[in-house]
Amino acid sequence: MRVIPLGTSSGRPTVARHVSGLAVDLGRSWILIDCGEGTQQQIMRSPLKPSRLAAILITHLHGDHVLGLPGLLGTLGMEGRTAPLQIVGVDGIGRWLDVMCDLPILGIDFPMTLTELVDDSLDGVAGEPLHVADVDGFAVYALALRHRVPAFGYRIVEPDRPGHIDIDAARRAGVTNGPDLGRLQRGESVIGSLGEVRPAQVIGPQRRGLAVTVLGDTARCDASVSLAFDADLLVHECTYANADQDLAERWKHSTPADATWVANQAGVGHLVLNHFSTRYDDPSLLLNEARTAFVNTTLANELAPIDVPAADPT
Amino acid sequence: MRVIPLGTSSGRPTVARHVSGLAVDLGRSWILIDCGEGTQQQIMRSPLKPSRLAAILITHLHGDHVLGLPGLLGTLGMEGRTAPLQIVGVDGIGRWLDVMCDLPILGIDFPMTLTELVDDSLDGVAGEPLHVADVDGFAVYALALRHRVPAFGYRIVEPDRPGHIDIDAARRAGVTNGPDLGRLQRGESVIGSLGEVRPAQVIGPQRRGLAVTVLGDTARCDASVSLAFDADLLVHECTYANADQDLAERWKHSTPADATWVANQAGVGHLVLNHFSTRYDDPSLLLNEARTAFVNTTLANELAPIDVPAADPT
Repeated sequence: MRVIPLGTSSGRPTVARHVSGLAVDLGRSWILIDCGEGTQQQIMRSPLKPSRLAAILITHLHGDHVLGLPGLLGTLGMEGRTAPLQIVGVDGIGRWLDVMCDLPILGIDFPMTLTELVDDSLDGVAGEPLHVADVDGFAVYALALRHRVPAFGYRIVEPDRPGHIDIDAARRAGVTNGPDLGRLQRGESVIGSLGEVRPAQVIGPQRRGLAVTVLGDTARCDASVSLAFDADLLVHECTYANADQDLAERWKHSTPADATWVANQAGVGHLVLNHFSTRYDDPSLLLNEARTAFVNTTLANELAPIDVPAADPT
Repeated sequence: MRVIPLGTSSGRPTVARHVSGLAVDLGRSWILIDCGEGTQQQIMRSPLKPSRLAAILITHLHGDHVLGLPGLLGTLGMEGRTAPLQIVGVDGIGRWLDVMCDLPILGIDFPMTLTELVDDSLDGVAGEPLHVADVDGFAVYALALRHRVPAFGYRIVEPDRPGHIDIDAARRAGVTNGPDLGRLQRGESVIGSLGEVRPAQVIGPQRRGLAVTVLGDTARCDASVSLAFDADLLVHECTYANADQDLAERWKHSTPADATWVANQAGVGHLVLNHFSTRYDDPSLLLNEARTAFVNTTLANELAPIDVPAADPT
């Protein structure tokens, strides 16, 4: 898995930065999280293939997170897409897409499935993430966060992977050839030179799949911790610097102190910050503040891929 | 007056080109014609001041001409705009804006006036352009063109200007001082050294104001000629090359032969082509074809201003 930030600016674009959009590349396919204006052009500038886009997850219905969606859908249609596309969004997005399909604004003739999430509390309490989609074997979970409008974060989880094979143990049990080792790794028993060998004899415990949590706009909240718990990578918004905590509270956004609090509480492997207010010409101020509280923090850099570290090989 | 193309690509953007948007700079204020995705960022890259944007004219409701509108409106609001904004568009645009204001997608708190134009014929017959707006003393006219959906072109007309003053005739009539010459030019009579002098004695005929006609998507039609008649500048779409006339007819777009036919029929001063299909890496092919039929043709070049020639000083 790897993450490619497409837009990192909060609220509106600048000459150099785009509004929200982020790709999670699963290998054979990829997921787009949020689709602000200009995202389709950023996709063209990236190595992502539009034909392999499998799902779009929308965190909330503020313009800077969704206004690129109809343009992207229109372009996918013009490119002749026939493959289905999953869209998970927030209650109301279907009504918006419908009025554009009813007018000539948007013509789409490939199949789409739309899931609309509902939250009326806006309080971002801790909870069990909801399983909202499956994409190419990866499970997608959502949980409501704490923003001015209903807003969801997403967690994308790779399937658990088979344990490592103990080659020495296999050899001692009389299995040496490659195809038999492969069968054991896939969970099949084989007949070695000393008799039957079962996978449990030579294969270590299943390894947990990688988990990536991407939050949209949110103030500090316990739901973010629930959604990011033990994740390999957390992408957390960081709109304001610590000195502007009053603005963060007023607009229900986060500071480095907020994002690192979530990263520490959840015990994530790597924290990536995005969604920078246009008031900061250089968001490295935000990075410096964050690193004092969570060392393994980086800034999302548009079009620069971030590899998700391999799960602990135990 | 001058025209600044902001987007010249048909249907979808490329890495290098943007979808439709074009500014007509009136001096103190400016008019935006069409607002495809990415237009607000192109405005940031241009010398245009968003605070001086007085009106937005939308030619038709295809996504590549309108999907940048909500983002631009949202950004104007975030920048603290309080001045009113005129929008002239096509029937249905209000319903689309309404659903976004009803959802949290779009928050606008500056005054807007919206005029929706209706056309059910799609046949682009000749006719008298409709006076649809006044912007900073300039009159805006519209006429329905010939496209797959209701589509309008616009004509922006500078007010007529006073005639030139004949300094020698004024001197012979006994008027020599500057303030009196100014009063005569503003249409007032003055008392010269030889008695009363009326403006008609020394001022030439009123000079016609400049006229700029900008068409959105259209096939060749007589309405384009009506709207462009005697204009100083005509911006005509040129989606396809002459060899692709079948595509132009199928999708109701134009070729160099179509655009130059309109320019010649209307007797315009200068023809600018835009809205190039992404199938042509280099639209200079279109320019070369057009110049064989209308010499004073240029290609719209994103962010490169085009001065509108001064009216004939007669």
